[in-house]
Amino acid sequence: MFKVYGTSVSGNCYKVKLLLEQLGKQYQWQEVNSLTGETRTPEFLAINANGRVPVLQIEHGRYLPESNAILCYLADGTEFWPAERREKAETLQWMFFEQYSHEPYVAVARFIKKFLPPDHPRQAELPRLVERGYQALDVMEKHLAERRYMVGQRYSIADIALFAYTHVASDGGMDLGRYVAIDTWIERVKAQPRFVPLPAE
Amino acid sequence: MFKVYGTSVSGNCYKVKLLLEQLGKQYQWQEVNSLTGETRTPEFLAINANGRVPVLQIEHGRYLPESNAILCYLADGTEFWPAERREKAETLQWMFFEQYSHEPYVAVARFIKKFLPPDHPRQAELPRLVERGYQALDVMEKHLAERRYMVGQRYSIADIALFAYTHVASDGGMDLGRYVAIDTWIERVKAQPRFVPLPAE
Repeated sequence: MFKVYGTSVSGNCYKVKLLLEQLGKQYQWQEVNSLTGETRTPEFLAINANGRVPVLQIEHGRYLPESNAILCYLADGTEFWPAERREKAETLQWMFFEQYSHEPYVAVARFIKKFLPPDHPRQAELPRLVERGYQALDVMEKHLAERRYMVGQRYSIADIALFAYTHVASDGGMDLGRYVAIDTWIERVKAQPRFVPLPAE
Repeated sequence: MFKVYGTSVSGNCYKVKLLLEQLGKQYQWQEVNSLTGETRTPEFLAINANGRVPVLQIEHGRYLPESNAILCYLADGTEFWPAERREKAETLQWMFFEQYSHEPYVAVARFIKKFLPPDHPRQAELPRLVERGYQALDVMEKHLAERRYMVGQRYSIADIALFAYTHVASDGGMDLGRYVAIDTWIERVKAQPRFVPLPAE
Protein backbone atom coordinates (compact mmCIF):
# COMPACT_ATOMS: atom_id res chain seq x y z
CA MET A 1 0.00 0.00 0.00
CA PHE A 2 1.22 3.50 -0.83
CA LYS A 3 2.03 5.91 1.95
CA VAL A 4 1.78 9.66 1.34
CA TYR A 5 3.65 12.19 3.46
CA GLY A 6 1.63 15.36 3.07
CA THR A 7 0.14 18.54 4.51
CA SER A 8 -3.64 18.28 4.07
CA VAL A 9 -4.24 21.98 3.29
CA SER A 10 -1.47 22.06 0.64
CA GLY A 11 -2.67 22.04 -2.97
CA ASN A 12 0.43 20.13 -4.04
CA CYS A 13 -0.39 17.37 -1.54
CA TYR A 14 -4.07 17.44 -2.48
CA LYS A 15 -3.16 16.59 -6.09
CA VAL A 16 -1.83 13.22 -4.93
CA LYS A 17 -4.82 12.54 -2.71
CA LEU A 18 -7.29 13.38 -5.49
CA LEU A 19 -5.62 11.06 -8.01
CA LEU A 20 -5.30 8.20 -5.51
CA GLU A 21 -9.01 8.53 -4.73
CA GLN A 22 -9.91 8.65 -8.42
CA LEU A 23 -7.77 5.61 -9.15
CA GLY A 24 -9.49 3.81 -6.28
CA LYS A 25 -6.11 3.01 -4.69
CA GLN A 26 -5.71 2.30 -1.02
CA TYR A 27 -3.18 4.49 0.72
CA GLN A 28 -2.03 5.66 4.10
CA TRP A 29 -1.81 9.41 4.72
CA GLN A 30 0.97 10.55 7.05
CA GLU A 31 0.27 14.14 8.04
CA VAL A 32 3.43 16.30 8.01
CA ASN A 33 2.91 19.95 8.89
CA SER A 34 5.13 21.98 6.57
CA LEU A 35 3.81 25.18 8.20
CA THR A 36 5.49 24.31 11.52
CA GLY A 37 8.83 23.07 10.17
CA GLU A 38 8.10 19.34 10.17
CA THR A 39 9.55 19.06 6.64
CA ARG A 40 12.92 20.34 7.93
CA THR A 41 13.62 17.72 10.60
CA PRO A 42 16.53 15.28 10.09
CA GLU A 43 14.00 12.42 9.88
CA PHE A 44 12.05 14.08 7.08
CA LEU A 45 15.18 15.25 5.21
CA ALA A 46 16.26 11.59 5.10
CA ILE A 47 13.05 10.95 3.11
CA ASN A 48 13.35 14.04 0.89
CA ALA A 49 16.62 16.00 1.01
CA ASN A 50 14.78 18.92 -0.59
CA GLY A 51 12.54 19.23 2.49
CA ARG A 52 9.18 19.40 0.75
CA VAL A 53 5.88 17.58 0.71
CA PRO A 54 4.28 15.61 -0.83
CA VAL A 55 6.42 12.49 -0.88
CA LEU A 56 5.11 9.11 -2.01
CA GLN A 57 6.56 6.01 -0.39
CA ILE A 58 6.57 3.54 -3.26
CA GLU A 59 8.04 0.66 -1.31
CA HIS A 60 9.97 0.24 1.92
CA GLY A 61 12.81 2.79 1.88
CA ARG A 62 11.93 4.09 -1.60
CA TYR A 63 10.52 7.61 -1.76
CA LEU A 64 9.33 9.79 -4.65
CA PRO A 65 9.07 13.58 -4.09
CA GLU A 66 7.61 16.28 -6.39
CA SER A 67 3.82 16.37 -6.67
CA ASN A 68 3.70 16.26 -10.46
CA ALA A 69 6.23 13.42 -10.74
CA ILE A 70 4.07 11.48 -8.26
CA LEU A 71 1.01 12.12 -10.46
CA CYS A 72 2.92 10.75 -13.47
CA TYR A 73 4.05 7.69 -11.53
CA LEU A 74 0.55 6.89 -10.28
CA ALA A 75 -1.12 7.64 -13.63
CA ASP A 76 1.40 5.66 -15.70
CA GLY A 77 -0.49 3.14 -17.80
CA THR A 78 -3.92 4.58 -16.88
CA GLU A 79 -6.35 6.87 -18.73
CA PHE A 80 -5.20 9.78 -16.53
CA TRP A 81 -1.95 10.21 -18.52
CA PRO A 82 -2.41 9.96 -22.31
CA ALA A 83 -0.08 7.39 -23.86
CA GLU A 84 0.13 9.03 -27.29
CA ARG A 85 3.50 10.71 -27.64
CA ARG A 86 2.35 14.26 -28.35
CA GLU A 87 -0.46 14.27 -25.80
CA LYS A 88 1.88 12.73 -23.22
CA ALA A 89 4.29 15.65 -23.77
CA GLU A 90 1.48 18.24 -23.76
CA THR A 91 0.35 16.85 -20.39
CA LEU A 92 3.88 17.45 -19.09
CA GLN A 93 3.96 20.88 -20.74
CA TRP A 94 1.02 22.02 -18.61
CA MET A 95 2.46 20.40 -15.49
CA PHE A 96 5.77 22.26 -15.96
CA PHE A 97 3.76 25.42 -16.67
CA GLU A 98 1.98 24.83 -13.37
CA GLN A 99 5.18 24.48 -11.34
CA TYR A 100 7.06 27.34 -13.02
CA SER A 101 4.52 29.99 -14.07
CA HIS A 102 1.45 29.30 -11.89
CA GLU A 103 2.17 27.71 -8.50
CA PRO A 104 4.95 30.16 -7.45
CA TYR A 105 2.37 32.98 -7.72
CA VAL A 106 -1.13 31.53 -7.23
CA ALA A 107 -0.12 29.12 -4.43
CA VAL A 108 2.35 31.45 -2.71
CA ALA A 109 -0.18 34.32 -2.67
CA ARG A 110 -2.67 31.91 -1.04
CA PHE A 111 -0.06 30.81 1.49
CA ILE A 112 0.75 34.37 2.51
CA LYS A 113 -2.84 35.60 2.66
CA LYS A 114 -4.39 32.52 4.28
CA PHE A 115 -1.66 31.17 6.55
CA LEU A 116 0.55 34.12 7.60
CA PRO A 117 -0.48 36.86 10.08
CA PRO A 118 -1.85 40.09 8.49
CA ASP A 119 1.18 42.05 9.72
CA HIS A 120 3.76 39.57 8.36
CA PRO A 121 6.44 41.27 6.20
CA ARG A 122 5.78 38.82 3.34
CA GLN A 123 2.36 40.47 2.83
CA ALA A 124 4.35 43.04 0.81
CA GLU A 125 4.96 40.39 -1.87
CA LEU A 126 1.24 40.07 -2.63
CA PRO A 127 0.78 42.71 -5.37
CA ARG A 128 3.52 41.18 -7.56
CA LEU A 129 2.34 37.62 -6.87
CA VAL A 130 -1.26 38.50 -7.75
CA GLU A 131 -0.12 40.22 -10.96
CA ARG A 132 1.90 37.18 -12.04
CA GLY A 133 -0.88 34.86 -10.91
CA TYR A 134 -3.32 36.66 -13.19
CA GLN A 135 -0.86 36.24 -16.08
CA ALA A 136 -0.91 32.46 -15.53
CA LEU A 137 -4.70 32.40 -15.25
CA ASP A 138 -4.93 34.44 -18.47
CA VAL A 139 -2.92 31.74 -20.28
CA MET A 140 -5.23 29.03 -18.91
CA GLU A 141 -8.39 30.98 -19.81
CA LYS A 142 -7.24 31.42 -23.40
CA HIS A 143 -6.44 27.71 -23.65
CA LEU A 144 -9.68 26.51 -22.03
CA ALA A 145 -11.86 28.85 -24.10
CA GLU A 146 -11.61 26.29 -26.91
CA ARG A 147 -11.33 23.07 -24.92
CA ARG A 148 -13.11 21.03 -22.26
CA TYR A 149 -9.88 19.78 -20.66
CA MET A 150 -6.24 20.92 -20.61
CA VAL A 151 -5.06 18.16 -22.96
CA GLY A 152 -6.97 16.21 -25.59
CA GLN A 153 -10.59 15.28 -25.06
CA ARG A 154 -10.44 13.94 -21.55
CA TYR A 155 -9.65 14.65 -17.92
CA SER A 156 -5.99 13.97 -17.09
CA ILE A 157 -3.26 14.67 -14.54
CA ALA A 158 -2.73 18.04 -16.29
CA ASP A 159 -6.21 19.01 -15.05
CA ILE A 160 -5.49 17.69 -11.56
CA ALA A 161 -2.17 19.58 -11.36
CA LEU A 162 -3.75 22.88 -12.42
CA PHE A 163 -7.03 22.47 -10.55
CA ALA A 164 -5.29 22.15 -7.16
CA TYR A 165 -4.43 25.83 -6.75
CA THR A 166 -6.59 27.41 -9.48
CA HIS A 167 -9.90 26.64 -7.79
CA VAL A 168 -8.71 28.34 -4.58
CA ALA A 169 -7.00 31.30 -6.29
CA SER A 170 -9.39 33.64 -4.49
CA ASP A 171 -7.66 32.64 -1.23
CA GLY A 172 -4.65 34.56 -2.59
CA GLY A 173 -6.70 37.58 -3.63
CA MET A 174 -7.33 36.72 -7.29
CA ASP A 175 -10.82 37.24 -8.66
CA LEU A 176 -11.93 34.16 -10.59
CA GLY A 177 -15.15 35.95 -11.60
CA ARG A 178 -13.40 37.34 -14.64
CA TYR A 179 -12.62 33.87 -16.04
CA VAL A 180 -15.60 32.22 -17.70
CA ALA A 181 -13.77 29.26 -19.25
CA ILE A 182 -11.80 28.50 -16.08
CA ASP A 183 -14.99 28.66 -14.02
CA THR A 184 -16.75 26.16 -16.30
CA TRP A 185 -13.70 23.89 -16.25
CA ILE A 186 -13.57 23.99 -12.42
CA GLU A 187 -17.15 22.70 -12.31
CA ARG A 188 -16.25 20.05 -14.89
CA VAL A 189 -13.37 18.83 -12.70
CA LYS A 190 -15.57 18.80 -9.59
CA ALA A 191 -18.06 16.61 -11.47
CA GLN A 192 -15.49 13.87 -12.17
CA PRO A 193 -16.10 10.42 -10.65
CA ARG A 194 -14.64 9.96 -7.14
CA PHE A 195 -13.83 13.67 -6.83
CA VAL A 196 -12.83 14.74 -3.30
CA PRO A 197 -12.45 18.38 -2.20
CA LEU A 198 -9.36 20.12 -0.84
CA PRO A 199 -9.72 20.27 2.96
CA ALA A 200 -10.47 23.88 3.99
CA GLU A 201 -8.35 23.82 7.17
CA MET B 1 12.36 18.58 -39.61
CA PHE B 2 11.99 20.08 -36.14
CA LYS B 3 12.22 23.82 -35.69
CA VAL B 4 13.35 25.29 -32.38
CA TYR B 5 12.50 28.84 -31.32
CA GLY B 6 15.21 29.70 -28.83
CA THR B 7 17.64 32.18 -27.32
CA SER B 8 21.14 30.70 -27.76
CA VAL B 9 22.55 31.91 -24.43
CA SER B 10 19.57 30.54 -22.45
CA GLY B 11 20.23 27.34 -20.53
CA ASN B 12 16.61 26.25 -21.02
CA CYS B 13 17.02 26.55 -24.80
CA TYR B 14 20.44 24.88 -24.69
CA LYS B 15 18.86 21.76 -23.14
CA VAL B 16 16.86 21.23 -26.35
CA LYS B 17 19.86 21.86 -28.59
CA LEU B 18 22.05 19.45 -26.63
CA LEU B 19 19.52 16.61 -26.80
CA LEU B 20 18.80 17.15 -30.51
CA GLU B 21 22.55 17.00 -31.20
CA GLN B 22 22.95 13.87 -29.08
CA LEU B 23 20.00 12.21 -30.81
CA GLY B 24 21.56 13.09 -34.16
CA LYS B 25 18.35 14.82 -35.27
CA GLN B 26 18.29 17.49 -37.92
CA TYR B 27 16.67 20.73 -36.82
CA GLN B 28 16.33 24.37 -37.70
CA TRP B 29 17.16 26.93 -35.02
CA GLN B 30 15.12 30.14 -35.08
CA GLU B 31 16.86 32.67 -32.88
CA VAL B 32 14.39 34.63 -30.71
CA ASN B 33 15.96 37.17 -28.36
CA SER B 34 14.06 36.97 -25.08
CA LEU B 35 16.37 39.66 -23.64
CA THR B 36 14.99 42.30 -26.04
CA GLY B 37 11.29 41.41 -25.79
CA GLU B 38 11.01 39.20 -28.88
CA THR B 39 9.07 36.61 -26.85
CA ARG B 40 6.37 39.22 -26.11
CA THR B 41 5.37 40.13 -29.67
CA PRO B 42 1.88 39.15 -30.93
CA GLU B 43 3.55 36.80 -33.45
CA PHE B 44 5.44 34.93 -30.76
CA LEU B 45 2.50 34.88 -28.31
CA ALA B 46 0.51 33.10 -31.03
CA ILE B 47 3.15 30.33 -30.82
CA ASN B 48 3.34 30.29 -27.01
CA ALA B 49 0.76 32.29 -25.08
CA ASN B 50 3.05 32.10 -22.05
CA GLY B 51 5.70 34.15 -23.90
CA ARG B 52 8.73 31.98 -23.20
CA VAL B 53 11.40 30.09 -25.09
CA PRO B 54 12.21 27.39 -26.00
CA VAL B 55 9.35 26.24 -28.19
CA LEU B 56 9.56 23.17 -30.42
CA GLN B 57 7.60 23.18 -33.67
CA ILE B 58 6.56 19.55 -33.97
CA GLU B 59 4.69 19.96 -37.21
CA HIS B 60 3.17 22.84 -39.16
CA GLY B 61 1.12 24.91 -36.70
CA ARG B 62 1.79 22.57 -33.75
CA TYR B 63 4.03 23.96 -31.02
CA LEU B 64 5.33 22.51 -27.76
CA PRO B 65 6.65 24.93 -25.08
CA GLU B 66 8.43 24.15 -21.76
CA SER B 67 12.03 22.99 -22.06
CA ASN B 68 11.62 19.87 -19.94
CA ALA B 69 8.42 18.78 -21.72
CA ILE B 70 10.32 19.15 -25.01
CA LEU B 71 13.12 16.94 -23.64
CA CYS B 72 10.52 14.29 -22.72
CA TYR B 73 8.92 14.50 -26.14
CA LEU B 74 12.22 14.16 -27.99
CA ALA B 75 13.56 11.44 -25.66
CA ASP B 76 10.35 9.38 -25.71
CA GLY B 77 11.24 5.85 -26.77
CA THR B 78 15.00 6.47 -26.62
CA GLU B 79 17.66 5.57 -24.04
CA PHE B 80 17.63 9.20 -22.82
CA TRP B 81 14.38 8.69 -20.87
CA PRO B 82 14.23 5.39 -18.93
CA ALA B 83 11.13 3.36 -19.78
CA GLU B 84 10.89 1.54 -16.45
CA ARG B 85 8.05 3.04 -14.43
CA ARG B 86 9.97 4.08 -11.32
CA GLU B 87 13.00 5.42 -13.19
CA LYS B 88 10.72 7.27 -15.60
CA ALA B 89 9.09 9.02 -12.61
CA GLU B 90 12.45 9.69 -10.93
CA THR B 91 13.63 11.36 -14.14
CA LEU B 92 10.58 13.64 -13.95
CA GLN B 93 11.18 14.18 -10.22
CA TRP B 94 14.57 15.74 -10.96
CA MET B 95 13.19 17.75 -13.87
CA PHE B 96 10.45 19.22 -11.66
CA PHE B 97 13.09 19.83 -8.97
CA GLU B 98 15.08 21.69 -11.60
CA GLN B 99 12.23 23.97 -12.64
CA TYR B 100 10.93 24.65 -9.11
CA SER B 101 13.91 24.57 -6.72
CA HIS B 102 16.95 25.14 -8.95
CA GLU B 103 16.32 27.20 -12.10
CA PRO B 104 14.44 30.09 -10.37
CA TYR B 105 17.60 30.70 -8.30
CA VAL B 106 20.64 29.42 -10.23
CA ALA B 107 19.43 30.64 -13.64
CA VAL B 108 17.90 33.90 -12.44
CA ALA B 109 21.09 34.82 -10.52
CA ARG B 110 23.04 34.19 -13.72
CA PHE B 111 20.61 36.31 -15.74
CA ILE B 112 20.89 39.26 -13.35
CA LYS B 113 24.67 39.09 -12.94
CA LYS B 114 25.58 38.35 -16.57
CA PHE B 115 22.92 40.15 -18.61
CA LEU B 116 21.72 43.13 -16.54
CA PRO B 117 23.77 46.33 -15.92
CA PRO B 118 25.69 46.44 -12.61
CA ASP B 119 23.49 49.27 -11.34
CA HIS B 120 20.19 47.52 -12.16
CA PRO B 121 17.77 47.40 -9.19
CA ARG B 122 17.38 43.62 -9.59
CA GLN B 123 21.00 43.18 -8.42
CA ALA B 124 19.50 43.49 -4.92
CA GLU B 125 17.86 40.07 -5.40
CA LEU B 126 21.22 38.30 -5.72
CA PRO B 127 21.97 37.42 -2.07
CA ARG B 128 18.68 35.56 -1.65
CA LEU B 129 18.96 33.88 -5.07
CA VAL B 130 22.50 32.70 -4.34
CA GLU B 131 21.45 31.35 -0.94
CA ARG B 132 18.56 29.37 -2.47
CA GLY B 133 20.78 28.32 -5.38
CA TYR B 134 23.26 26.82 -2.94
CA GLN B 135 20.40 24.93 -1.27
CA ALA B 136 19.54 23.31 -4.62
CA LEU B 137 23.19 22.52 -5.34
CA ASP B 138 23.52 20.97 -1.86
CA VAL B 139 20.64 18.60 -2.71
CA MET B 140 22.33 17.65 -6.00
CA GLU B 141 25.73 17.15 -4.34
CA LYS B 142 24.27 14.81 -1.73
CA HIS B 143 22.50 12.82 -4.46
CA LEU B 144 25.51 12.63 -6.80
CA ALA B 145 27.93 11.65 -4.02
CA GLU B 146 26.66 8.09 -4.39
CA ARG B 147 25.83 8.03 -8.10
CA ARG B 148 27.34 8.61 -11.52
CA TYR B 149 24.14 10.06 -13.03
CA MET B 150 20.99 11.66 -11.64
CA VAL B 151 18.81 8.59 -12.33
CA GLY B 152 19.77 4.93 -12.63
CA GLN B 153 23.08 3.92 -14.18
CA ARG B 154 23.06 6.06 -17.29
CA TYR B 155 22.97 9.55 -18.70
CA SER B 156 19.39 10.81 -19.23
CA ILE B 157 17.32 13.94 -19.78
CA ALA B 158 17.45 14.48 -16.00
CA ASP B 159 21.20 15.09 -16.41
CA ILE B 160 20.62 17.38 -19.40
CA ALA B 161 17.96 19.41 -17.55
CA LEU B 162 20.20 19.92 -14.50
CA PHE B 163 23.49 20.35 -16.36
CA ALA B 164 22.20 23.34 -18.35
CA TYR B 165 22.38 25.88 -15.52
CA THR B 166 24.47 23.98 -12.96
CA HIS B 167 27.67 24.07 -15.02
CA VAL B 168 27.42 27.87 -15.35
CA ALA B 169 26.31 28.51 -11.75
CA SER B 170 29.46 30.60 -11.26
CA ASP B 171 27.97 33.14 -13.72
CA GLY B 172 25.43 33.86 -10.96
CA GLY B 173 28.03 34.09 -8.23
CA MET B 174 27.92 30.54 -6.87
CA ASP B 175 31.21 28.80 -6.12
CA LEU B 176 31.19 25.31 -7.62
CA GLY B 177 34.60 24.63 -6.05
CA ARG B 178 32.89 23.39 -2.90
CA TYR B 179 31.03 20.62 -4.77
CA VAL B 180 33.24 17.63 -5.54
CA ALA B 181 30.51 15.27 -6.77
CA ILE B 182 28.86 17.91 -8.96
CA ASP B 183 32.23 18.82 -10.46
CA THR B 184 32.96 15.20 -11.39
CA TRP B 185 29.45 14.80 -12.81
CA ILE B 186 29.87 17.95 -14.93
CA GLU B 187 32.99 16.43 -16.51
CA ARG B 188 31.08 13.16 -17.03
CA VAL B 189 28.32 15.01 -18.88
CA LYS B 190 30.84 16.91 -21.01
CA ALA B 191 32.40 13.57 -22.03
CA GLN B 192 29.13 12.21 -23.48
CA PRO B 193 29.02 11.43 -27.22
CA ARG B 194 27.98 14.38 -29.42
CA PHE B 195 28.21 16.83 -26.51
CA VAL B 196 28.02 20.48 -27.56
CA PRO B 197 28.76 23.43 -25.24
CA LEU B 198 26.42 26.26 -24.22
CA PRO B 199 27.32 29.30 -26.35
CA ALA B 200 29.12 31.86 -24.16
CA GLU B 201 27.50 34.92 -25.77
